[in-house]
Amino acid sequence: VSATPLISRLAIIGVGLIGGSLSLALKRAGQVGEAVGYGRSAANLQDALRLGVIDRIAASPAEAVADADMVIVAVPLGAMQATFEAIRPALSPQAIITDVGSAKASVIAAARAGLGECLPRFVAGHPIAGAEKTGAAAAQAELFQNRRVILTPSPETLPAALEKTWQMWQAAGAEVLDMAADEHDRLLAATSHLPHLLAFALVEMLARRPPQEDIFRFAGTGFRDFSRIAASDPVMWRDICISNRAALLDALNQYRAQLDSLAVAIETSDGAALQALFQAAKTSRDSL
Amino acid sequence: VSATPLISRLAIIGVGLIGGSLSLALKRAGQVGEAVGYGRSAANLQDALRLGVIDRIAASPAEAVADADMVIVAVPLGAMQATFEAIRPALSPQAIITDVGSAKASVIAAARAGLGECLPRFVAGHPIAGAEKTGAAAAQAELFQNRRVILTPSPETLPAALEKTWQMWQAAGAEVLDMAADEHDRLLAATSHLPHLLAFALVEMLARRPPQEDIFRFAGTGFRDFSRIAASDPVMWRDICISNRAALLDALNQYRAQLDSLAVAIETSDGAALQALFQAAKTSRDSL
Repeated sequence: VSATPLISRLAIIGVGLIGGSLSLALKRAGQVGEAVGYGRSAANLQDALRLGVIDRIAASPAEAVADADMVIVAVPLGAMQATFEAIRPALSPQAIITDVGSAKASVIAAARAGLGECLPRFVAGHPIAGAEKTGAAAAQAELFQNRRVILTPSPETLPAALEKTWQMWQAAGAEVLDMAADEHDRLLAATSHLPHLLAFALVEMLARRPPQEDIFRFAGTGFRDFSRIAASDPVMWRDICISNRAALLDALNQYRAQLDSLAVAIETSDGAALQALFQAAKTSRDSL
Repeated sequence: VSATPLISRLAIIGVGLIGGSLSLALKRAGQVGEAVGYGRSAANLQDALRLGVIDRIAASPAEAVADADMVIVAVPLGAMQATFEAIRPALSPQAIITDVGSAKASVIAAARAGLGECLPRFVAGHPIAGAEKTGAAAAQAELFQNRRVILTPSPETLPAALEKTWQMWQAAGAEVLDMAADEHDRLLAATSHLPHLLAFALVEMLARRPPQEDIFRFAGTGFRDFSRIAASDPVMWRDICISNRAALLDALNQYRAQLDSLAVAIETSDGAALQALFQAAKTSRDSL
């Protein structure tokens, strides 16, 4: 614990699993003076206060960011621009603003539109962490331990803002790296957004079968693993699909071509092609 | 433990995870006099003997089934017919023959071609159980505890053969049910074979990207869950895809149409359609 914490006043807009866990991690590390939270659900904010996730509840986004030197915007992607617009007039001249959204080019565009003169102090970020539970009550100080956080600064970003955001995530236990926003969006489309889409698509397709078939009765552990992410938050994933539209469509179209080839291999009973593809996949997956 | 075990001599052709675990479960239940095993790998058979999975190693499939009253054929789907042909001359007149393959209509066709006059004593079966490990060393007596086993008798199957196979799986701890082979194949295509194909397809597609991208570095827990089944045995899954070709193609084509619709929804930023589909999937998955 340092004598002077990295952050004097932390503002969290959206005190859910991610924003709440970040606050807890920074508090445990002794790097926060006071944590102020704002969110749409009063019950969730009361949970956050009771559990020590935040020290004070603000009545508005603007009130939350007053005198804060670090502002975490942890709202759904669809609410980013409105949130930026709401906090902009109340931001202190020293405040650094960062976010935790799963798509980055769209958030930078929202910051460009909504933050105005504060844009150089905005650092787009994405912690690759999550859990099945949501809300402040699910927050845990260890959530980012040994997990990666990708920061995607834009040309306007001040080096000092990037540096402090980087230190903050390191203090929370994360391994931090940076890359271009469009590179992030392409990578995450492939490793996260497309798999979620594929799992949602399969479960919904099976659920549409006549109920007397009771198809899920025969689901084994493989199906359970594969489909776990289909229980993710529909609104959050709607926003991700739309926010990362171009990169996700590229990945989806590549995958559709892959399935076209596989359909031909099955139709023609091409065992050699199937085995080669399955073996290549197994080799990669085993190395994970 | 009953005074007279259900099975005097159990023959296992293919002493892997499934065949080995069944033998262990029946031995623990006191329902096996002697368990004789045959397989292609001498080292695996030695493991099985050492671990008490089998009591004796046979030098051929025919030697394994001599005087056996229950024969478990636990070989890959592609080896079923040749195995049936190899054991047929050595089967005792009382022997009941069953299998554990993941596709059933093709196994019944193989039995019809390979078992000849023994066909009425063949009971096609599929335990919906598995684990990431393979081989006799991974066998465990608890593998089928509270797991479902589907038996798919054909018109020729003797009721007494179905009854004894049913009792055997119950003694191993499983919940047994029966249905038509084509119904089984349609259900499993949807809940198991298609998900495996989709996971293999995604991992292989990502593995083909330039290695400098190191895309798997950014894989979160969602991707790990989704892709776990892509580490499954390539030869086994090649055989399943070919053996259950028709039902799998039906399911795959329905899924490709589902992805066509999703691509349109993303292209047109149709948030309402995406959210409705994701919500329906979540509701189903949450009820699993």
